[in-house]
Amino acid sequence: MNRALSIRSRKGEKKEDAPKHRFTMASLRGIQQPELSKKLFKLIKSENHAIGNYEAAGRERIGIASQLSEWGESTNDETVSDISDKIGVLLSELGEQEDHFAQNLEDYRTVLKTIRNMEGSVQPSRDQRQKTMDEIAKLKHKEPESAKIPTLEQQLVREEAQNLVAEAQLTNITRQKLKEAYDLHFAATIERAEKQIILAKHGRRLIDLLDDTPVVPGDTRPNVFEGASQARQILNDAEADLREWQPSIEAITYKSQGMGSNLMPAEESIEAQSGISAAEIAPEESKADHSKVAERYRSNGLSFQRYSPLNPTTTGSI
Amino acid sequence: MNRALSIRSRKGEKKEDAPKHRFTMASLRGIQQPELSKKLFKLIKSENHAIGNYEAAGRERIGIASQLSEWGESTNDETVSDISDKIGVLLSELGEQEDHFAQNLEDYRTVLKTIRNMEGSVQPSRDQRQKTMDEIAKLKHKEPESAKIPTLEQQLVREEAQNLVAEAQLTNITRQKLKEAYDLHFAATIERAEKQIILAKHGRRLIDLLDDTPVVPGDTRPNVFEGASQARQILNDAEADLREWQPSIEAITYKSQGMGSNLMPAEESIEAQSGISAAEIAPEESKADHSKVAERYRSNGLSFQRYSPLNPTTTGSI
Repeated sequence: MNRALSIRSRKGEKKEDAPKHRFTMASLRGIQQPELSKKLFKLIKSENHAIGNYEAAGRERIGIASQLSEWGESTNDETVSDISDKIGVLLSELGEQEDHFAQNLEDYRTVLKTIRNMEGSVQPSRDQRQKTMDEIAKLKHKEPESAKIPTLEQQLVREEAQNLVAEAQLTNITRQKLKEAYDLHFAATIERAEKQIILAKHGRRLIDLLDDTPVVPGDTRPNVFEGASQARQILNDAEADLREWQPSIEAITYKSQGMGSNLMPAEESIEAQSGISAAEIAPEESKADHSKVAERYRSNGLSFQRYSPLNPTTTGSI
Repeated sequence: MNRALSIRSRKGEKKEDAPKHRFTMASLRGIQQPELSKKLFKLIKSENHAIGNYEAAGRERIGIASQLSEWGESTNDETVSDISDKIGVLLSELGEQEDHFAQNLEDYRTVLKTIRNMEGSVQPSRDQRQKTMDEIAKLKHKEPESAKIPTLEQQLVREEAQNLVAEAQLTNITRQKLKEAYDLHFAATIERAEKQIILAKHGRRLIDLLDDTPVVPGDTRPNVFEGASQARQILNDAEADLREWQPSIEAITYKSQGMGSNLMPAEESIEAQSGISAAEIAPEESKADHSKVAERYRSNGLSFQRYSPLNPTTTGSI
């Protein structure tokens, strides 16, 4: 690990401004991605290539296993034939484990897609809000007395409410799914590693049975392999060890487990579709530590339960 | 390991006859391989593809590591940014380990080439002997009195002597190098696995720092990441663990270590080049258990030391 503790390139802080509604090509296939989900879209594509490489490596390994076995048979040396065939069995299983790893990575990739999709769906909400804000600013400059301004401002209030929900859903999904994705990724890495260690260690026992004492011309090797039963036992041991394998990893703790389908804290109920139609929930208690943004949200006539890590049933209200 | 204990296909015992000197295409590149080394030639080619897949997977993983870090930064969530950057560091190292594994497999592949090359070089010796035998058989049938026959028979004796040496060299190299090759292969598998377990376990500690408690609309996440110093410590721990990694595998025992450059048992000296010019070595002791082939070899005026596992200095002679 001879690297800096960050791999991020420090090429000047090119802070992106509030994203514009600007679709650009994100793929040669012409699939268009909203700005917000572009980075993850590309990452998910790269992961697809990585997975493909593991699948191919697994296939090759299984093929090599057969080739080794066939080669061993062709040597007409019973010992080499038996051992190479059994190494082949282990190699083939090593290949299967590569493939199983690839399938597990596919699951991790699917979880990343959840974040990407959420990013994609939040983009229009951000864009619409920005567009209205720009319009108001333009009007105020050009026609400060325009009757359109109050109408647009009321529209902005609704759009901001919608956007607040969208941004909360985005951060909730992002943190939960990022955690889940790399939970899966690292668990898959450990599983492949532990299983391959089992196989490789038994493989080493196997090759240790191969007597490589050199012979002189005219000497013939014994035409039975004395270690045959030991070799078979090694395969049985490997099979048994693999069957008994259990994940040894410690579970990751999730605090978002009760998150509802609305992607809000559990026991929360929020409706903020295109218009303002927040559910009317009887406030139980009012907290003072509301953020400025939340304040504005509430001052616009919305009511929602507010999540507090200390007291999850605490509610905030209008 | 849901498979038979052998992966070899049992498609009838199509025993190959004594190989003919028949060159066929073994590759689309038009590289011609002797019959004897064809199987290994193909296996070594397949291994090259497998290695390429691991190299590509490693490269992709390192690329994904950067993409994840850049994505995290773009979320403008300090916690996600920091954790994704550090996951990126670990992913990048996972990728480096794939690449290191590929390099180790390259070493194993080089060892297999030694067997393949020996196979290729033994082929002409087998072919020449077979050709002479065929010629004698043909003559004996057509012109039993031909004066050519004794000449050919003398030639055959020399060719058989040469072939005996070649076959001994082949079996010595095959067993030694097969053992060495999979010693390297399995050791490389274990090394990658153990190192990746270190990285993945620390990775799991890292994602456990990510607070995925959901928020409600208007709530803002704290703009400092409280686990920042713990996260940094995790990377330091991972780096330290990786630095301290030592191979834990048990050494394979080789009995061919003293094998000379002539590929014969140590302290043996055999010269059997194109003609019969075996080194004259004073016989110390004569053993009775000589094989029929060795007997014929000796009866043709050759002398060589005979290797006995019980008494390596025991010699056989004319």
